[in-house]
Amino acid sequence: MKKINLGMIGGGIGAFIGDAHRRASRICNDYTLVGGLFSASHEKSLKFAKEEGLDLERCYATIDALIKGELKLPEGERMQAVSIVTPNYIHFEHAKKLIENGFHVICDKPLTTSVEDAEYLQHLLKERELVFCLTHTYTGYPMVRQMRSLIQQGVLGKIQRIDAQYYQGWVNAIIHNKGATLNTWRLDPKISGISSCMADIGVHAFNLIEYTTGEKIKKILADLNSLKEDNPMDLDGTVLLRFDGNFKGVIRASQIATGEENNIRIAVYGSKGGLKWEQEDPNYLYLINDDEPVKVYKPGHEYNSGFALASHVLPPGHPEGIYEAFGNLYKGAAKAIRGLKVDAGEFPGIEDGVRGMKFIEAAVKSNKEGNIWVEI
Amino acid sequence: MKKINLGMIGGGIGAFIGDAHRRASRICNDYTLVGGLFSASHEKSLKFAKEEGLDLERCYATIDALIKGELKLPEGERMQAVSIVTPNYIHFEHAKKLIENGFHVICDKPLTTSVEDAEYLQHLLKERELVFCLTHTYTGYPMVRQMRSLIQQGVLGKIQRIDAQYYQGWVNAIIHNKGATLNTWRLDPKISGISSCMADIGVHAFNLIEYTTGEKIKKILADLNSLKEDNPMDLDGTVLLRFDGNFKGVIRASQIATGEENNIRIAVYGSKGGLKWEQEDPNYLYLINDDEPVKVYKPGHEYNSGFALASHVLPPGHPEGIYEAFGNLYKGAAKAIRGLKVDAGEFPGIEDGVRGMKFIEAAVKSNKEGNIWVEI
Amino acid sequence: MKKINLGMIGGGIGAFIGDAHRRASRICNDYTLVGGLFSASHEKSLKFAKEEGLDLERCYATIDALIKGELKLPEGERMQAVSIVTPNYIHFEHAKKLIENGFHVICDKPLTTSVEDAEYLQHLLKERELVFCLTHTYTGYPMVRQMRSLIQQGVLGKIQRIDAQYYQGWVNAIIHNKGATLNTWRLDPKISGISSCMADIGVHAFNLIEYTTGEKIKKILADLNSLKEDNPMDLDGTVLLRFDGNFKGVIRASQIATGEENNIRIAVYGSKGGLKWEQEDPNYLYLINDDEPVKVYKPGHEYNSGFALASHVLPPGHPEGIYEAFGNLYKGAAKAIRGLKVDAGEFPGIEDGVRGMKFIEAAVKSNKEGNIWVEI
Amino acid sequence: MKKINLGMIGGGIGAFIGDAHRRASRICNDYTLVGGLFSASHEKSLKFAKEEGLDLERCYATIDALIKGELKLPEGERMQAVSIVTPNYIHFEHAKKLIENGFHVICDKPLTTSVEDAEYLQHLLKERELVFCLTHTYTGYPMVRQMRSLIQQGVLGKIQRIDAQYYQGWVNAIIHNKGATLNTWRLDPKISGISSCMADIGVHAFNLIEYTTGEKIKKILADLNSLKEDNPMDLDGTVLLRFDGNFKGVIRASQIATGEENNIRIAVYGSKGGLKWEQEDPNYLYLINDDEPVKVYKPGHEYNSGFALASHVLPPGHPEGIYEAFGNLYKGAAKAIRGLKVDAGEFPGIEDGVRGMKFIEAAVKSNKEGNIWVEI
Repeated sequence: MKKINLGMIGGGIGAFIGDAHRRASRICNDYTLVGGLFSASHEKSLKFAKEEGLDLERCYATIDALIKGELKLPEGERMQAVSIVTPNYIHFEHAKKLIENGFHVICDKPLTTSVEDAEYLQHLLKERELVFCLTHTYTGYPMVRQMRSLIQQGVLGKIQRIDAQYYQGWVNAIIHNKGATLNTWRLDPKISGISSCMADIGVHAFNLIEYTTGEKIKKILADLNSLKEDNPMDLDGTVLLRFDGNFKGVIRASQIATGEENNIRIAVYGSKGGLKWEQEDPNYLYLINDDEPVKVYKPGHEYNSGFALASHVLPPGHPEGIYEAFGNLYKGAAKAIRGLKVDAGEFPGIEDGVRGMKFIEAAVKSNKEGNIWVEI
Repeated sequence: MKKINLGMIGGGIGAFIGDAHRRASRICNDYTLVGGLFSASHEKSLKFAKEEGLDLERCYATIDALIKGELKLPEGERMQAVSIVTPNYIHFEHAKKLIENGFHVICDKPLTTSVEDAEYLQHLLKERELVFCLTHTYTGYPMVRQMRSLIQQGVLGKIQRIDAQYYQGWVNAIIHNKGATLNTWRLDPKISGISSCMADIGVHAFNLIEYTTGEKIKKILADLNSLKEDNPMDLDGTVLLRFDGNFKGVIRASQIATGEENNIRIAVYGSKGGLKWEQEDPNYLYLINDDEPVKVYKPGHEYNSGFALASHVLPPGHPEGIYEAFGNLYKGAAKAIRGLKVDAGEFPGIEDGVRGMKFIEAAVKSNKEGNIWVEI
Repeated sequence: MKKINLGMIGGGIGAFIGDAHRRASRICNDYTLVGGLFSASHEKSLKFAKEEGLDLERCYATIDALIKGELKLPEGERMQAVSIVTPNYIHFEHAKKLIENGFHVICDKPLTTSVEDAEYLQHLLKERELVFCLTHTYTGYPMVRQMRSLIQQGVLGKIQRIDAQYYQGWVNAIIHNKGATLNTWRLDPKISGISSCMADIGVHAFNLIEYTTGEKIKKILADLNSLKEDNPMDLDGTVLLRFDGNFKGVIRASQIATGEENNIRIAVYGSKGGLKWEQEDPNYLYLINDDEPVKVYKPGHEYNSGFALASHVLPPGHPEGIYEAFGNLYKGAAKAIRGLKVDAGEFPGIEDGVRGMKFIEAAVKSNKEGNIWVEI
Repeated sequence: MKKINLGMIGGGIGAFIGDAHRRASRICNDYTLVGGLFSASHEKSLKFAKEEGLDLERCYATIDALIKGELKLPEGERMQAVSIVTPNYIHFEHAKKLIENGFHVICDKPLTTSVEDAEYLQHLLKERELVFCLTHTYTGYPMVRQMRSLIQQGVLGKIQRIDAQYYQGWVNAIIHNKGATLNTWRLDPKISGISSCMADIGVHAFNLIEYTTGEKIKKILADLNSLKEDNPMDLDGTVLLRFDGNFKGVIRASQIATGEENNIRIAVYGSKGGLKWEQEDPNYLYLINDDEPVKVYKPGHEYNSGFALASHVLPPGHPEGIYEAFGNLYKGAAKAIRGLKVDAGEFPGIEDGVRGMKFIEAAVKSNKEGNIWVEI
């Protein structure tokens, strides 16, 4: 099958997330990277394009040049989709222009730096037949998809409790070092937006809850911590959650949980059982209940839902990792771009992005106003 | 060495916690059970005493009879310490009378059903040279003690984040079954006091935080859930924590986390590293930090602190369990009863009981008044 | 119920296995230690008896004195059972005299230092109604018993593969230190017999295989290692196993697997599934098969067999440890001593001891003669 | 950088290992698949090439056609390397012709079906400057490379014990089903060679031992099992190992360890410590020793060796999986093909293939002749 022509904004030399997007696009085997705008410095951008063996003509200096250049090409050659992997604050501008000019967009999270911008993009997309994929990577893991399937099948009964965590420690070394703090864009509100911890990782926990359970978070009460008085950004926090049903939940997230790497986990408990998953051992999904042995689901087995099964390529026991999870999202987007039928849950879209932004703004507001409940 | 004569209130046939106390007292080898008041029904109490091979004369019908009977005996024969292992609401009355009459007391948690009662006991003890041991069992585990020692040694640097969890699922089967609910004393406020989940297990998490870190919780904001409208007791909740220092924390507890057995765990993060422990695998203590391999401490090794080392009897690799943890508290109390030097941390005392009650009352109040901050 | 009067040979001050036996006897609540012969030095023995609060009259200087002294006492007061917890080479003499004089015997493993002696004891017991309990501790764990029950129920189908491991590292520090080597009785063939690793720990793996599967090992081929030329004892080895059926197995044991603590584990695979257990996390039993989620059995649940359920006292999630496993054997022996019905598997007896000795002798012989097959 | 033109023999529609090779080649970003011979049926081969979007002219019907066709092309367009991912018995023929005609070869293991063939290929390569990469995938894992680095650095001291396992259960469902057995090429000696279990997975364990420790296995004694009398192939076995030094080791492998997925693990113990790794949780490497906390190494940290660090692309905590391990081998081969400096250990070569074949033949011989020692 013909590969989809892919462009990329950001993600040049040294950018780990851009590299992850490209690996994902290659691993799923549906895309060819044909060009982009890989760095704010055109020189650096060209250097990257050269290393990557790309056509230098399609390494553009501005988003406008990219759009103009690509639209001139015959349709079969033109970029069909563009991945945006820049820092947060320029997601909006690029996404807006790409959508307005008819490109499918794959965008890193968080969607934008404000709910307003996010809703504007949502509005733009409404009138167009374009695919928008927001890379909430963890939803690409086979066992997260199996968790979603099991909950849809009703194995948990009525939900009673939800607990999601995302603990990292990487800001610890930075926040205690003035120089490093100033050089970290995620801690700069002009680049990152109003939040560091909640926008960067809390929102993943938020998304994972809604993805696996199908439940919508209605309002939240947040208690955030910026650790140092001269740091304007949250590095850590706990967020109480209210849902429609009579159950409660909590999101805990931290970038100063020193020593933690990427410890995202979720537990959902219902009247019939509980399900637990954690990203650092992503191939194990635990189903527990009142009086049966614990059941451990693993990828690649026929007992998984069709959706989970299709999300793991190898036989059981061969661990796939983060690129494969990422690749599953790219695969889902590719299906949509090709006009194939895509089921709910194959990749996160603009609605997920808007909801994420609402969560972030509400978290910051709740904390600022003295830990009060804020609607989402 | 002569054994300490031990009496027991409650804990007769079928009572698992009474059996646990007795096993603990035997495993540490410092006590002989000589009598008690094992059940509200004297008949049942006698039956138990007979089974246990006790002197039936010392199986009493009331606390007053017990006190009178024992005080008549020569000092060397008399009960020296009495364990109270009844439902919560009669802890106070028994503890009060025993203290007033000069008996050392070992009491199950929570201490009482109100802060007021707890402080009254504290007041009573102030004027007397009596040992009071509150069985916060988890503080008896060798690796919890090692965690305390490492934090005292400063391996974590300045604390940045504390997260404690106590998840159980046993109320799930009960709360969805009206008959079972009515027959469960922990769900009856007249017997249990104002709280189920926070009083029974949240308070363990509270105690574990203060025990391992040496930090005091200053105020809390609680969000509790009773699941059913006709259930007056909390079964689940999240409690935000404020400490003196500029760091935050959270306690999560549930009795309706279906499928969870006794999943109590604690994580503490500081500027230099993090420490994590969980009760269901109690022989592993994890020390993590920015860029060194994870270190896993296990019991019985010389690298542990003297305190942790003394709390594990066997060579490394032989798992000791809950009875041994319990036994360590009994051992600490025995040392105190014998007038030997006892270090802080060997067993929880009346102050821990009072603080626990303050936590419980504050949690219920915060929740009731709309999730506001309440001082402890 | 009246306690059983227990005596003890060996196990005085500083002896960890004697202490473990005593704790086990107390935790199961069926015995009272009344006297013994706790050390080759009578002075040390008396010191121990004093510390323990025992009647010094019943702290004997020789086995003959013990037998004579006890037999003079009225039957209700007399020792009923005696635990032998000495180094291996004097198990035989003591067991022989105790059996001949009508005492029940609880004996540490390995039974003796030769098959001949072991069979002599077996012969002696044949004509007497005496209980003989050999403390293969690991058979006391609830999940080992559940494994046995599941295999008996046929969940594995026909067995295809058995793999047992017992890895320790404690001899590493000793064997590289001449002085320490000379002072370690387990490395002295005069005290330990013909084998160190196989006799001390390989035999546990051997016993665990026969206990859980009900299969008998028919012949073995051993490859042992003594690491140093001037060390006469095996410290490490692999033993190939032949059974009656058409399946194979292996025992791997080492005392120089540096860093290992007490890593005993067993895996059994059949045509319908596999079962795996390991002692360092003894509360987890894994059932795996072709295409179902892994099932994890844990103690205290109703889904366990009656035998496994009765071997764990607390509710699920409370880890019991090695003393409780040990205590389960003492409990089984107590039932037998009291003339109650005892099911197969409640405690290991003389046959297990004889088989163990056969295994040890065969292992040494196979290795010595060039790794040939030797019948058991 | 210009991609390396890659061809492939075998691995068409439905072949999981071919797909894994292609994903690996894409993930490492050094290759472009340009053509091949994807199936014995040319029609199927063409169908695959079409799906993959390849130039159908370069989808050949025979190896001779491929060689002829490619050699006609200008050097810059021509296939530079060819991956052989067929069943074992045609590895030799294809590799031979490719080498003779100057193509670099990447070949799945086991190298051939006999030592003789393997040595012939080794001989052919001696006179040519060609890269030969044998895909012993597990050597591509970052933590396996860290294990190798740590052993090279001497952290284990002198080796005392080596234990490697490779347990799978997938043949269980097949061997008990006559029809399925006949249709499984791995169980057909004409296609697979003289061994199933040892050739397919035992040889991985063999390679992993030599890779991580740098030690050479000198002779072996094997005990294999074919389970059914009418099955000519081993499905299970234990292999005793002799090395140059005074230490011993064992390989255990099974394809009928029912329920096991891909449970390959290795433990190496020395005078200073032990190292343990297992493939199903590949991001954890355990270093244990006499009296220090267990150290757990994880990928992506600066504390790893340069080699291990370079083998993991993402920050710590993001699990990479089997494709990335595979990709690391392709990356190593790409460096060699490009004439860049390659360190020992970056990818397995022809010597590893020859040694593997020697192991397989020796294992079968030892077993056949009554479990005797056979030199390698």
